[in-house]
Amino acid sequence: MSGLADKQITVIGMGLMGASLAGALRGKCRAVVGVARRGASIEMALERGLIDQGTTDLAEGVSRADVVVLATPVRVILRQIPEIGPLLPEGCLLIDLGSTKADIVAAMADLPPHVQPLGGHPMCGKEKSGIEVAEPTLYQGRTFILSPLPRTSEAALAQGKALAQAAGARPLVIEAARQDFLVATISHLPYLLACALVSTADATTSADPLVWEIVAGGFRDTSRVAGSDVTMMVDILLTNHDQVVKATEVCISQLRELQSLVAEKNEEALRAMLSAIRETRKEMYP
Amino acid sequence: MSGLADKQITVIGMGLMGASLAGALRGKCRAVVGVARRGASIEMALERGLIDQGTTDLAEGVSRADVVVLATPVRVILRQIPEIGPLLPEGCLLIDLGSTKADIVAAMADLPPHVQPLGGHPMCGKEKSGIEVAEPTLYQGRTFILSPLPRTSEAALAQGKALAQAAGARPLVIEAARQDFLVATISHLPYLLACALVSTADATTSADPLVWEIVAGGFRDTSRVAGSDVTMMVDILLTNHDQVVKATEVCISQLRELQSLVAEKNEEALRAMLSAIRETRKEMYP
Repeated sequence: MSGLADKQITVIGMGLMGASLAGALRGKCRAVVGVARRGASIEMALERGLIDQGTTDLAEGVSRADVVVLATPVRVILRQIPEIGPLLPEGCLLIDLGSTKADIVAAMADLPPHVQPLGGHPMCGKEKSGIEVAEPTLYQGRTFILSPLPRTSEAALAQGKALAQAAGARPLVIEAARQDFLVATISHLPYLLACALVSTADATTSADPLVWEIVAGGFRDTSRVAGSDVTMMVDILLTNHDQVVKATEVCISQLRELQSLVAEKNEEALRAMLSAIRETRKEMYP
Repeated sequence: MSGLADKQITVIGMGLMGASLAGALRGKCRAVVGVARRGASIEMALERGLIDQGTTDLAEGVSRADVVVLATPVRVILRQIPEIGPLLPEGCLLIDLGSTKADIVAAMADLPPHVQPLGGHPMCGKEKSGIEVAEPTLYQGRTFILSPLPRTSEAALAQGKALAQAAGARPLVIEAARQDFLVATISHLPYLLACALVSTADATTSADPLVWEIVAGGFRDTSRVAGSDVTMMVDILLTNHDQVVKATEVCISQLRELQSLVAEKNEEALRAMLSAIRETRKEMYP
């Protein structure tokens, strides 16, 4: 029932996430169909062997699909859900790859009853975006969050799990609001911190351009995600604003505490706090 | 004059930085002598081929040295400078590897006149510390900051440059106060941000332990330096507190601005700020 071998899977959006997923699923199902706005993206996906067929016509692309994957930025997904619903065949599973889930799952609740909706969020990505950097191994070993709706059938959820596993990922079922709370801290906050760091270095640069000559390894790692695709990140931040604002607030208070301990030269308390943090991180990444 | 071939170089401190430097210099000078408090560190440095000779006796270790390198934490360096000065042979170059320079250079100013002092700060390191993770390639291609004092001779500075180059690093002369200002932003601030992030995730964990299951790549990179050696970092933060407090303040204001734009859902301004930051980072790491 949940096997993919006889299914047609249509992936909408041939960016990094969509094209990589298509490539990971190809050969494990009847056919992988790619849909993109630009014909050039379809041509490249075909050339790179990431899809079996492709089209720029959304209706045509989904007309015989058993599973449709929305792999566009979050707010495009929100527009596409009502548009695509009536075009889907009876019993079709509609899953998305958006990084925030509450708004998307709310929009999915209004889909026609013949469609099976399922929120999805694979925890992978790259600093660079676009089909040029897509690779079928992108999902390998990563967590693939699945957020079912009350109306999602057991069979549809099982199919979502099978899809995640076929891509090499580890499915993890989390309710939408809870996932948005969690990723605000572990994914969206690191992005804002990286951005604030780059912005601070930029301010320092105007005082002394030599900063460019000596940017160190710690800076490179801590700022890496500031290179993420802006359109994708704006969508994520604006569809998860409450949780992001709260997580940022907690982080600023932690930063203020560290800053105070340094300003007061409170060696004992500073050492205790930094040691506890170091232990916590060691537990996270043993 | 500035060649190292006929010199004896004594490295005090057989941790990651000292043992790695010793290994990088060995074979490029007459002898590399290691000094450590614990005999076990000397034995391991000898076993791993990182030094020619070693001793736990500081006075003995420096008695015939042409160059002495202080590779201990910053506040240990501050204690060692007055202690070691009278033990050094005539004309000996005393250089350190501490991450902050203003306090160290001030202490070096009081050295006996027969010693040539030079502040040093190689921009390299690792998440893990200790001789176990030392490797002679650590300095390869990295910037090695040199902060001369008014009393430092041209010949002594040239010898410091030769030492950095012999280790595979790129010497860069920066005055002590200016280097402390710059590294506050590009090295010490990233550490505090990484710590605040881990601490925030830890707070979230108490609300939902599932956060541990889904820590993503962005989190791993942004938090990496939170694993740095605490004793080293406490020394750095406390000997550069003014600059660190200032850099943190600038960063908090940048973070507040980003947070406000998200809270107000000011899409246009948010996109503009994030795009400018992304471009800045691309300039930093083309």
